[in-house]
Amino acid sequence: MLNHEMTELLKIKYPIIQAPMAGGVTTSRLVAEVSNSGGLGMIGAGYMSADQIREQIREIKQLTSKPFGINLFVPNEFEVTKNELESANQFLNPIRQQLNLHQKDQVELPNFKDVFEKFIDQIKVIMEEKVPICTFTFGIPSREVIAELKQSNIILMGTATTVTEAIENQKAGMDMVVVQGSEAGGHRGNFINCSQESLIGLMSLIPQVVDNVSIPVVAAGGIMDGRGLMAAICLGAKGVQMGTAFLTCMESGANKVHKEAILNANEDQPVLTRSFSGKWARGIKNKFIVEMQNHEKHLPDFPIQNTLTQDIRKTSAAQNNQDFISLWSGQSPRLAKNQTVELLIKNIMAEAKKLGFIEAK
Amino acid sequence: MLNHEMTELLKIKYPIIQAPMAGGVTTSRLVAEVSNSGGLGMIGAGYMSADQIREQIREIKQLTSKPFGINLFVPNEFEVTKNELESANQFLNPIRQQLNLHQKDQVELPNFKDVFEKFIDQIKVIMEEKVPICTFTFGIPSREVIAELKQSNIILMGTATTVTEAIENQKAGMDMVVVQGSEAGGHRGNFINCSQESLIGLMSLIPQVVDNVSIPVVAAGGIMDGRGLMAAICLGAKGVQMGTAFLTCMESGANKVHKEAILNANEDQPVLTRSFSGKWARGIKNKFIVEMQNHEKHLPDFPIQNTLTQDIRKTSAAQNNQDFISLWSGQSPRLAKNQTVELLIKNIMAEAKKLGFIEAK
Repeated sequence: MLNHEMTELLKIKYPIIQAPMAGGVTTSRLVAEVSNSGGLGMIGAGYMSADQIREQIREIKQLTSKPFGINLFVPNEFEVTKNELESANQFLNPIRQQLNLHQKDQVELPNFKDVFEKFIDQIKVIMEEKVPICTFTFGIPSREVIAELKQSNIILMGTATTVTEAIENQKAGMDMVVVQGSEAGGHRGNFINCSQESLIGLMSLIPQVVDNVSIPVVAAGGIMDGRGLMAAICLGAKGVQMGTAFLTCMESGANKVHKEAILNANEDQPVLTRSFSGKWARGIKNKFIVEMQNHEKHLPDFPIQNTLTQDIRKTSAAQNNQDFISLWSGQSPRLAKNQTVELLIKNIMAEAKKLGFIEAK
Repeated sequence: MLNHEMTELLKIKYPIIQAPMAGGVTTSRLVAEVSNSGGLGMIGAGYMSADQIREQIREIKQLTSKPFGINLFVPNEFEVTKNELESANQFLNPIRQQLNLHQKDQVELPNFKDVFEKFIDQIKVIMEEKVPICTFTFGIPSREVIAELKQSNIILMGTATTVTEAIENQKAGMDMVVVQGSEAGGHRGNFINCSQESLIGLMSLIPQVVDNVSIPVVAAGGIMDGRGLMAAICLGAKGVQMGTAFLTCMESGANKVHKEAILNANEDQPVLTRSFSGKWARGIKNKFIVEMQNHEKHLPDFPIQNTLTQDIRKTSAAQNNQDFISLWSGQSPRLAKNQTVELLIKNIMAEAKKLGFIEAK
């Protein structure tokens, strides 16, 4: 039923990519263990400095000789008015009070030039360290960046939430494209229409995308087991990218409170919010999401809002308090388990084989 | 890969149900042709009187000797204040003006007692005419109604959008349950949590439901071809219910303008709105949806809003004007074709067999 285009390109055994979850989830142990188990481990490097990236790449190379990858956020222009900042802080200050944090009026903000320079530094390290696979979220990098990476023989993979975005990825020279269904946890990857509207379920998104691009398509969103893998393959994907399923694994660096929230959640609890970062993202509804709900359409864009909520998220996490941290999760939390990566991948493949999956020779 | 629990129970050849689309789409020819081609044709009888139902059942029996089914809307209590009515008409009057319709201040409204009595009359006809399969949307009928239908050996099937709703259907004695993913066109079947939140994609919804009920699960939402059928089966469903794919068929009674809108749409154009009926439903974004967007959260409930917009929808349809009619569609319009039912079903099964589907003997 399957052709092995994806596994051959990535030089991996099983068509399973561990989603590059940013913010400390993708420990070196997680990434290495996924690659050692036959999948593709990925560093979620969106928020990391070039030095941190270099350090982690070297650490992972000590733990595995298999291919692994890295994901970066493509910088988007942003701006914010003094008024927007003031009103955002006005919404956040009552929450700071609940956490005994200082009220804030002013915050040191990122500027686009710095964000862009950081991105270029990230790219440089990836080339220097010869990471075999580099993926992108929130857009498509410039022609120059793509050309440089390709010259270094790095396999490139973009993210798309619509057919149009997938076509743009192909046009830009991406070797593969991850299509993110509405089921997915964490940040939406939309970059052409950034409203909430392009929330397409994978049952619709995969076949419509594969009919319109020729590069291999990887499906992401709500996939947790062999059933999901085989469904994605039936729909035309060459493999899957799984986030939540790896997030609750023993090796993941996610906060214990975050893991427990997922393990105890129902399918309708992960909701869309832009309150944490300024970008729409799916996480389990908690006190922060509820208290910010009425304001979320008027908050500053990413990464401004992300910077503004940093003190709140850090303090809440340090207190093991799930009320004010981002509990990113896809729509299948009932299928999450706290197990080892090895067992997760073993079970996925055993189930997939029962459903007709044929392993590459 | 498949057990044949669903096809055996329904006494049909292929695990394909034509979704019961209300409002004139499910002509006798469409229903009969689906059943004659090996699927299960369904009358969308939600808005029909008992007499109209009887007439159509008799007509279909002339056209097929195979089983077919019928779907009813379970009545929900509703109320509306004079203020709500006035403001709803205030929003609708500018649209009436564009269509050269009379402005309205007062409308003859349904009351719950009448709606409920109509439902009981519908049930009676179904029993008298011995329709073999009866399905429900918007809730679960009373114990008495379920018991009576079961005594008449009618197979019962409910609709669920969450795991909890599926469990409630099983508890109430339903023989099967249709799970409606966020991809689905037309009205959302939510009946426990009626907010927009339980919009679960099928990739997440099917496996989480099948893990929690023992009755056969039928998947609905965005499924258009053999790829979707096999994906649903991999996820644990026993079959599929397809709406949009049948709506654009030659035999469907959908307005030509509606069919063309689907055939020309992209995957991100069908959006959620409650402007047409007072219930959330997915349809292709048109002038009506855009003009009502800012008011939709404050409109009267179903079926009040549905009654209020009736003159507008009828007139727009009569003028072949797609601006003010409900262009219900799931999220896979790019996969829609204008073809015969026979060819659609033949193609689905040929593709499914290529992907590993094993036909019942």
